[in-house]
Formats: sequence, C-alpha cells, structure tokens
Amino acid sequence: MLTIQDYQEIIKQKIADQNFDHAPIELYEPITYTMSLGGKRLRPTLTIMTCDIFGGKIEEAVNAALGLETFHNFTLLHDDIMDKAPIRRGEPTVYMKWDANRAILSGDTMMVFAYDYLLNSPKDLLFDLFTVFNKVGKEVCEGQQYDMNFETAEQVSIDEYLEMIKLKTAVLIGGSMHVGAIIARADSEQCKLTYDFGENIGMAFQLQDDLLDAFGDTSIFGKLTGGDIRTNKKTYLYLKALELASQEDRKRLIDLYSILDEDNDEKVKEVLALFNKYKISQLTRDLMEDYYSKAMIHLKEIQLSKDKEQILISLADSLMMRNS
Amino acid sequence: MLTIQDYQEIIKQKIADQNFDHAPIELYEPITYTMSLGGKRLRPTLTIMTCDIFGGKIEEAVNAALGLETFHNFTLLHDDIMDKAPIRRGEPTVYMKWDANRAILSGDTMMVFAYDYLLNSPKDLLFDLFTVFNKVGKEVCEGQQYDMNFETAEQVSIDEYLEMIKLKTAVLIGGSMHVGAIIARADSEQCKLTYDFGENIGMAFQLQDDLLDAFGDTSIFGKLTGGDIRTNKKTYLYLKALELASQEDRKRLIDLYSILDEDNDEKVKEVLALFNKYKISQLTRDLMEDYYSKAMIHLKEIQLSKDKEQILISLADSLMMRNS
Repeated sequence: MLTIQDYQEIIKQKIADQNFDHAPIELYEPITYTMSLGGKRLRPTLTIMTCDIFGGKIEEAVNAALGLETFHNFTLLHDDIMDKAPIRRGEPTVYMKWDANRAILSGDTMMVFAYDYLLNSPKDLLFDLFTVFNKVGKEVCEGQQYDMNFETAEQVSIDEYLEMIKLKTAVLIGGSMHVGAIIARADSEQCKLTYDFGENIGMAFQLQDDLLDAFGDTSIFGKLTGGDIRTNKKTYLYLKALELASQEDRKRLIDLYSILDEDNDEKVKEVLALFNKYKISQLTRDLMEDYYSKAMIHLKEIQLSKDKEQILISLADSLMMRNS
Repeated sequence: MLTIQDYQEIIKQKIADQNFDHAPIELYEPITYTMSLGGKRLRPTLTIMTCDIFGGKIEEAVNAALGLETFHNFTLLHDDIMDKAPIRRGEPTVYMKWDANRAILSGDTMMVFAYDYLLNSPKDLLFDLFTVFNKVGKEVCEGQQYDMNFETAEQVSIDEYLEMIKLKTAVLIGGSMHVGAIIARADSEQCKLTYDFGENIGMAFQLQDDLLDAFGDTSIFGKLTGGDIRTNKKTYLYLKALELASQEDRKRLIDLYSILDEDNDEKVKEVLALFNKYKISQLTRDLMEDYYSKAMIHLKEIQLSKDKEQILISLADSLMMRNS
C-alpha cells in the first residue's frame, strides 16, 4: 500500500505535467499561476487514495482527481474576487495580480478544464461521475452564497454556520472520495458510506481551519493569524462564544465585531481572551471529535480490511492534528 | 417536418418549465431572472432542429439544447460584468440589478446547470457530447479574452477580429448543431459538416449583428443604435473602413474612436457617414455572403433530402435577413 505522501506526490507530479501554455496568454497565464501555487492537494490525493483502497487503478482516477483540484482552485479564484482577498498561499490573488475581469474569465475557463479532466475517466462511469460532480458543484456555489450572506446578516445560528461549511467545504471533500470510489467500481452502498466519511472529516477539517485561523502559528499556517476576527467573520468560534458569554461579554464581543479596522491587533487579543474565557478552543475540538466519531462509524460500515481502514484513519488523524 | 417556429416553441416551453426556486434565493433569483429574459433561443432551437433533421428524437436532444442555452446565458451574464454593460434585452443586467458578486456566483452555478442538463442525454453519447461542449466552452472564453484585449489594443487586424468572433460566437452556433447531430447519431463526417455549416452561418450571424448595431432600427433591434461606435468597439465595420479610408478620413476615424462620451450623437452620425462613404455596409454584406456560400457548400456535402436541406437554408436565410 502507498502512503498519503506517495499519493500526494503522484498528484503533484501530474499537476506539474500540465501545460496551460495556450493563447491568449492573458487568459491562460492566471491559470498556470493558480495551478502552481501549491497547497496540500488534499482533494485529488483523496480521490486516488480512495480509488486505490477500493482496489481500483490509480491511473484511471488521476484525471478525475485533477478535475477536482482544478474545480477547487477555480472556486478559490472566484471567491477571492468576491471576498476581495489580497493574498492566497502567500502570493497575490489573481484578482489583485491582474484584475477582476481576468480572474472571472480564467476561473470560468478552469471550470471547463475541470470538466474536461473528469471526462478522461472510464466512459461507462461518466454519468455517475458527472452526477456527483454537478451536485457538489452546485452545493459549493450555494455554500459560498450563504458565506457571503452571513457577512451582512445580523444573526447567524450555529446550525446555519455548520450547514454553510458543509456546502462550501465538506461536500467537496466527501465528493473527492466518492469519485475515487466510483472509479474503483465500489458498490453504491460503499460509495455512499465513503462520501459520508469524507463529508464528516470535511466538517472537522473546516473547524480545524477556523481554529488555526484564530490560534495557529502564522509562520506555519501561512495566513495572518486572527484573519477571521479582523474581518468579523462569524465562525463557529464566534457563534459559540456568543452563545455562552455573559450578557456583558456578549455585548463586548458584538461591539468588537463591529470594528472594521483589520490592523487592530488589540481587538484580536481581546477577542481571543474572550474565546479563551469560554473555552471555545476546547469546545470546537469537541465538535470536531463528534464529526470524527461519525466518520469512524461510516468507516467501520464500509468493512475494509484493517490495513486499508488504517490509511483512512491516519488521514483523518492527520487532518485533525494538522497545524497548517 | 416542423417549422423553425415550432422548434423554437418547444424550447421556450421547456425553459418555462424549469424551476430554479431553490435556496439560497440570492443565488437562484438571478438565474431565474436571466433564463426568463427571453431572446431568440437560437442555439437550443438549432440543437433540436438538427437532431430532428438527422432523424433523431427531439426529446433526446431537448436537455442538451437547454444546456447550450444555459451555457450561453451564463457567458452573457459574466460578459456583462466584464463589459460593465447596464442593459441586456431591455432589462438591467444581473450585475447592475444586484451586484458583481451575485453575478459571478450565479453565473458559475448556471455553468454547472448547463453541464447537468447536458448530462441528461443518451448515456452512450456522453463522451462525445462533453468533448464538443468542453471544446466550445474553452473557445468561447478565449474569444471573450480576445474581445477584451482588443478594447485596449492599438491595432487589431481584420483576421484577428474574425478569429475573435469565430471563437466568441460562431463556434457555439456550430457546436449547438453538432450536439444535435451527435444525438441523432449522424456519422462523424456528417457531424463535422454540420458543425462547419453552423460555424460559417455563425460568422454571418455575428457580422449581421455588427451591421444592425450600426445601422439597425433601435425599436426593432432592442439595443441602442450605434452602441459599438459609442464604445469605440473595433468591429469589422470599423476595421474595414480604416483599411479603405483616405489618410485624412482614417485619421478622423481614429480620432472619433478616441472619444469616450457614449452620449455623443454627432460622433455616431459622423462615423456612419464615413462608413457610408466607403460602402462598409455593402462590403460587410459581401463578407456575410462569403460565409453563407461556404455554409452552403458544407450543406450540400451532408447530402440531406431536399426538404430537410431547405429547412437549414431557410434558417440561414432568416439569420442573414433578420432585423433584430
């Protein structure tokens, strides 16, 4: 059996082999740039790993894997325009480096590429693969819309927030594994359980992201710590703190989240102190554990051999424990 | 055999039957709005007409047809952001009515819907259909990029302009017919000839659009006459005039095309006078005739029965003669 790093290496090599050196350069240059920015390549790694675990051929899944990574990168590219984000993976975002028009259009083109990669999968599976991919595609858009809605919403419930991160992040993690299982010709029950495993791990993954944004080490995480706090993002951490805080602290938290100055370090410190006061970090970890446990129940139901099960457990553990 | 109007009615009914009434409303409202703005529904009409002419079942092609219309509307939605266009089909554009973010994201979602409609085609044809669709999708994006490049380019050649409108418009017209032929299980040579017919008709179609923009009757065409002149768009009309004009007229034309005031009616009048002086309208019609003739050569090679051939000729004629 290969290790997670082995799968990741296969994907990294495959991405490095792609050539977007077409005309017009104004369209394709941002695509080359975006695809080479790196990152964990989590989604495509999951696709080929899942395919391998179910006894499929990695080479039959690698194009679909690339399609999922291309789709993911396309969503980041467009999200960065909508969120006016200046930096992605330590480099200027496409919209900042060039302009919004090129970011819109190169993103659109990447989406076509995503479908084109996926098309290079076994022909008899295309209907099933595109069905999963389209469902995920719509849900990711819905998630992004909810995320934008929440920016200006007076109140967001914890359930609404969890539904948003499910749509925006978890379904694509689940979908990436689902695609791998389909290509390995796992039966439909196994495919469903694999998706459910992935979706639950995806929820834990996003909550860990929220935790790292608040409490992570900037030099490791690669993003400015407290970014979500600085931009008043209503994450689980904030919503949970609001729920538990005394009337006074709650009012203070709401006041702090009305400050628009992103350079206000004192605000970040004060919010973190309130988070600590109400043990938000631990409560977030508890919720992550809930999702992890659900994922493990689905995993057992798949009834894989112990060594294969162990790879998925290692993967889940590494996503739970990650510091970047 | 059905008439062009019959095919169009089938499509209009199919579009009216769609329901985008999902949550979040912020995402789906602009999709409902865009899809119900109307228009000629040319591309999907071509798809089912072509399918029918080749003896296929219209009901097998109608979803793919809807996919092509949805894709086309998605490109218009995103183009309107990039072009800062305030009006589309007499109504505010999505980006003006709501905002750029909702226009970006609802456009992205429409693209997924386009693929999802196309997926509801005969399963054994999915690979061929998606191959055509993806090729067209990339080319349309490339065409839009060239179109944007030309806005700021000092010089654009006539060949470059024709290549741009081929990518931006003609390939989707050809592709819409190609898809219909595939679903009717026409052989690959017939499919290719059908595409070539459509691409050439598509070129004539776009040139007619350019002509109508300059010389059309606003009340019929539905756009402000002279819009391309007002925005200094380097169309075939302008580029041909530049080529033929005396040194003095050429200089004047270039000067006129440096004016940024879109409300300058005097400018429009003077440009039209120069176009008339150099018989640009007739020369554009001549070029349209060239494309029409090429289309007819491809049509003969398909070797359809006379009555079926006649439907495609009628269609081509109606696109050549249209005043809106």
